[in-house]
Amino acid sequence: MKLASFKINEEERFGAVKETGKTMWNLAALEQDYDGMNILPGSLLRVIQGGQGAMSRLTELIHFGNAHEDPARFLYDWKDIALLSPITKPEKNIMCVGKNYREHAIEMGSEADIPEHIMIFTKAPTSVTGSSAVIDSHSALTSQLDYEGELAVIIGKKGINIPEEEALAYVFGYTILNDITARDLQKKHKQFFLGKSLDTTCPIGPCIVTADEIQNPEALTITTSVNGEVRQEAPVSDMIFSIERIIAELSAGMTLEPGDIIATGTPSGVGKGFKPPRFLKAGDSIEISIDSIGRLINTIG
Amino acid sequence: MKLASFKINEEERFGAVKETGKTMWNLAALEQDYDGMNILPGSLLRVIQGGQGAMSRLTELIHFGNAHEDPARFLYDWKDIALLSPITKPEKNIMCVGKNYREHAIEMGSEADIPEHIMIFTKAPTSVTGSSAVIDSHSALTSQLDYEGELAVIIGKKGINIPEEEALAYVFGYTILNDITARDLQKKHKQFFLGKSLDTTCPIGPCIVTADEIQNPEALTITTSVNGEVRQEAPVSDMIFSIERIIAELSAGMTLEPGDIIATGTPSGVGKGFKPPRFLKAGDSIEISIDSIGRLINTIG
Repeated sequence: MKLASFKINEEERFGAVKETGKTMWNLAALEQDYDGMNILPGSLLRVIQGGQGAMSRLTELIHFGNAHEDPARFLYDWKDIALLSPITKPEKNIMCVGKNYREHAIEMGSEADIPEHIMIFTKAPTSVTGSSAVIDSHSALTSQLDYEGELAVIIGKKGINIPEEEALAYVFGYTILNDITARDLQKKHKQFFLGKSLDTTCPIGPCIVTADEIQNPEALTITTSVNGEVRQEAPVSDMIFSIERIIAELSAGMTLEPGDIIATGTPSGVGKGFKPPRFLKAGDSIEISIDSIGRLINTIG
Repeated sequence: MKLASFKINEEERFGAVKETGKTMWNLAALEQDYDGMNILPGSLLRVIQGGQGAMSRLTELIHFGNAHEDPARFLYDWKDIALLSPITKPEKNIMCVGKNYREHAIEMGSEADIPEHIMIFTKAPTSVTGSSAVIDSHSALTSQLDYEGELAVIIGKKGINIPEEEALAYVFGYTILNDITARDLQKKHKQFFLGKSLDTTCPIGPCIVTADEIQNPEALTITTSVNGEVRQEAPVSDMIFSIERIIAELSAGMTLEPGDIIATGTPSGVGKGFKPPRFLKAGDSIEISIDSIGRLINTIG
């Protein structure tokens, strides 16, 4: 299932994608006709936190819609909606793996930058924005804004000290995240938080694909283009620390919770890696695509 | 006003301190007798987010209680309550200033460790616990658990690009925070997040003192004792980056929100600074006191 949050008629809603770019299930309308009960929680985050019960309800509703003689009555037209981050207001910072692709670690400095141990920093929840949103250039604060296309994992179940071999059972689904970074601030402040947390520098979307639809996330490919030119292209299997390993390392002594967002790192090809560097400027369009998930497209404002 | 969150009869409540160590206002009982209306929000975080309206209600209720002929009927006995972190579940990570006291920066390495620019890292919300709570020793993960006594600032008003001269107007109040750190993990993972985010390694409390009661936070003194032996003692005015400067730097391009918790750094005297180092061990009791706020006392489990 592909789940998304969006605005329609100035109201925040969430829904399930019927056909990308065309139609989205109107869950309120489905509930009305199905049994008249208003059972689904008010946000996609609450669905994730609601566990199997909320997901069963969603599955029933979509089954009902698909079997209905006139499913169109339960569908939003894609052009009427404005996508938001699937989780519009995360309840903790986004957790990000630094330098998790060998070639990217090298382009950020040298072979010495390839991490021996996993490196985790965070992005503020206030930095989150959605697909199609404008990213503020923050030109008064930085002249080195950079993109980082990443696969993000959404946790679906509470856990601590999760062994690698059970880790994927804690994944609710996958999405795309652009870890926009102010390279000058990242360097100046040493700890990455400030250079990674400017408002609108964490686009997420377009949707969360539930884990059952992605049997092998390592088989996915991340592609990032700037103004149509491919800059990053790598299989997720190139990661130094696998998804299972990331979940095991993060949950060692620290409880993971449903709705947690983990950005798994970016491949080589970021702007800073070019000689001379190619940082983002106003008007640039960045598109990150991952097969089976979709395309996260944002413009620098 | 001193505001606290606590458990009583297995329920989570918040209240205002009448007399530290003796009595706490029972706000539900006050509302009942005052006008029978249930207006106060359900948590201290919601009061902070509710702005001046919620605070006015609180002030009215306490005024009513103090003027009542039998105020005892509105009071909890201190020995019946178990203090929690004043904000029990922060809505984003705790933001912490690294190496913000000159002598502490030196004890962590050398003069080269004195930061030229502010350094910010975060602690996960799941690490938060309250005064009197037991801190897990995490002995399977670390053999270098260390204390860091700190003054914490609670933001009361949303803002971005806040100038230093207006910064204190954004402060709701002050509390005490123990930035418990696994030094081995902090070093191993380079970015501080993992070494700072183990469950129960962020005791906060005992209460939030509202900003109106602390005209000059720089005049406060932080004292940390381990098993009764003073380890850290320094005036807040020793900070390299002042509270005003911290708020200005954090809010540059990043929106601060009511309920945000900012730990302002720790003075010299942490366990790692001793030769040989004096890390925490099971049974140790750590007490951090700041005049006008109180004492945050925790034991290592």
